[in-house]
Amino acid sequence: MTKFNDTLLRAARGEKTEHTPVWFMRQAGRSQPEYRKLKEKYSLEEITHQPELCAYVTKLPVDQYNVDGAILYKDIVTPLAGIGVDVKIKSGVGPVISNPIRSRADIDRLGEFHAEEQVPYVLETIKILTEEQLDVPLIGFAGAPFTLASYMIEGGPSRSYNLTKSFMVSEPQAWQALMDKLGDMTIAYLKAQIAAGAKIVQIFDSWVGALHVADYRAFIKPTMTRIVSEVKKTGVPVITFGVGASHLVNEWHDLPVDVVGLDWRMQIREAEERGITKPVQGNLDPTLLIADWNVIEERAKDIVEQGVEHGAHIFNLGHGVFPDVQPATLKKLTEFVHTYSAQLRK
Amino acid sequence: MTKFNDTLLRAARGEKTEHTPVWFMRQAGRSQPEYRKLKEKYSLEEITHQPELCAYVTKLPVDQYNVDGAILYKDIVTPLAGIGVDVKIKSGVGPVISNPIRSRADIDRLGEFHAEEQVPYVLETIKILTEEQLDVPLIGFAGAPFTLASYMIEGGPSRSYNLTKSFMVSEPQAWQALMDKLGDMTIAYLKAQIAAGAKIVQIFDSWVGALHVADYRAFIKPTMTRIVSEVKKTGVPVITFGVGASHLVNEWHDLPVDVVGLDWRMQIREAEERGITKPVQGNLDPTLLIADWNVIEERAKDIVEQGVEHGAHIFNLGHGVFPDVQPATLKKLTEFVHTYSAQLRK
Repeated sequence: MTKFNDTLLRAARGEKTEHTPVWFMRQAGRSQPEYRKLKEKYSLEEITHQPELCAYVTKLPVDQYNVDGAILYKDIVTPLAGIGVDVKIKSGVGPVISNPIRSRADIDRLGEFHAEEQVPYVLETIKILTEEQLDVPLIGFAGAPFTLASYMIEGGPSRSYNLTKSFMVSEPQAWQALMDKLGDMTIAYLKAQIAAGAKIVQIFDSWVGALHVADYRAFIKPTMTRIVSEVKKTGVPVITFGVGASHLVNEWHDLPVDVVGLDWRMQIREAEERGITKPVQGNLDPTLLIADWNVIEERAKDIVEQGVEHGAHIFNLGHGVFPDVQPATLKKLTEFVHTYSAQLRK
Repeated sequence: MTKFNDTLLRAARGEKTEHTPVWFMRQAGRSQPEYRKLKEKYSLEEITHQPELCAYVTKLPVDQYNVDGAILYKDIVTPLAGIGVDVKIKSGVGPVISNPIRSRADIDRLGEFHAEEQVPYVLETIKILTEEQLDVPLIGFAGAPFTLASYMIEGGPSRSYNLTKSFMVSEPQAWQALMDKLGDMTIAYLKAQIAAGAKIVQIFDSWVGALHVADYRAFIKPTMTRIVSEVKKTGVPVITFGVGASHLVNEWHDLPVDVVGLDWRMQIREAEERGITKPVQGNLDPTLLIADWNVIEERAKDIVEQGVEHGAHIFNLGHGVFPDVQPATLKKLTEFVHTYSAQLRK
């Protein structure tokens, strides 16, 4: 094992780094031929439930792209099964839930979360990776309560979250009970990942951009504040992220998070103009990874420059890698960001 | 015919009104039982191509809800067939295009738009409505070039616009050629609607929120400026609207539009804090129309108050009416906004 590369952790804490660290959301999985080959032999469930397989998939992009962090190969709905949610990942669709929440009684029926009993394979994967294999930080993660609740109430992915938002505003007490339960679960899940070896965590509030600021403050922020405060007690840095949530960026900055994740819609310099002083993560538009390399380089250059100007910056995409992206592109991009940012940060 | 109600037009021009005018995006169509009954007998194409039927559908919500404007019952892709795009509206999917744009040659093949020859039924519908039937303004509309281009390049609806954005940045000259053609079409289409009797127009750039500000300025804004400037020569007010585009609201305000449409993510008072001084339109979250009435009223009250404080305001939803909304809810909501705003505006 070579020397541990802690660039990602230092950037997350706002410290000076020699280069801008890089990782990509969804860097492991469908965009990799090795993964697709594995899928011919094993189901998604088999891969995520067998720690050795899951560790292999998680580590692959680190070896191939030379990124500065490994993100655990898991879905954000993983912990829900343990508390009594009948969730399946349906290929081409996403998480599908056969017993969606329709009332307060459905919420009261949800059980307690115990990571060691309910997701031992997640913790085992982290241990394999962090004790023996990785020379970069393992990034733990969890879905945020709003995003998880949206799956639990809609019964699957949604474009507009009609049932979720209607439930939230019509039954605010039941909603808070749900947030409390999902908050407890998320705290326990992230703490368990950290205890197993995760050195940094990201909270995916992927779909919370569907709310306006006033609703975010009333229905979401107290729970998010509690989660982040609790997780921060472990000492590891916390990143927050969501899609189409530029209007909530100041709310996120208010949370005790270390890093504010930006999707591609708000550039780093605009976030700065809006008062974002914390380290930022992002934000190359992932749709552009199928464009010509000169376009990708030009965009990456601009983002690296904005990041250096901002100070602490973790280079990432504005959302996950699409399946049709060439691994060679991600390798080249990582190398470019490393080299160019090292020149600027000298 | 009763006295013509021009409240919508006066609000759009920033003039004082006795009450806040109301209309709802997608107020005509699937949420109305009369429409669903019509659909048992006629196809969508038959309804939109037969001026009398289309006028009936367009006028229905005006009679039933007492809204202050009638929006032409049409899809934004309607004019594309005329310039050579093979587009069909597929039920449950949206516009599907069998000959998507893949190259500059595909763009060069697009024909010129002539409203009188290619969409005579649209103009005839407007004439029927405005010459004889309506005592409120007929709202004409068109899709904006980015949004139309996204259908033309992806071949249908998309969640992430990968091909569109990749084409835009990789082939900027071809992209501009497409924007020029769609710009010409949009100008001609809106002018023809106005000549036929439309008293105000809305430009739907529904999906442009997928771009960040810098790309909006480089690839979209010049064409939008040209369209709005040309249409403004007719003297009718212009509204602009898009979904998930809060980060572009100042760009829209920069265009020579009269009214800035807001989806539900950015409240009117926030828009004001960001420097939006023009009349605004919006912005009740349409997903909440299935919530309890007391929630709807509380939300509507807040929006009316913000609108009165702002000055000129057109009450609308933050996006279109969903099919499962009860007509009685829209009627009650219209009445509430009229009554409550009249008290405040005294």
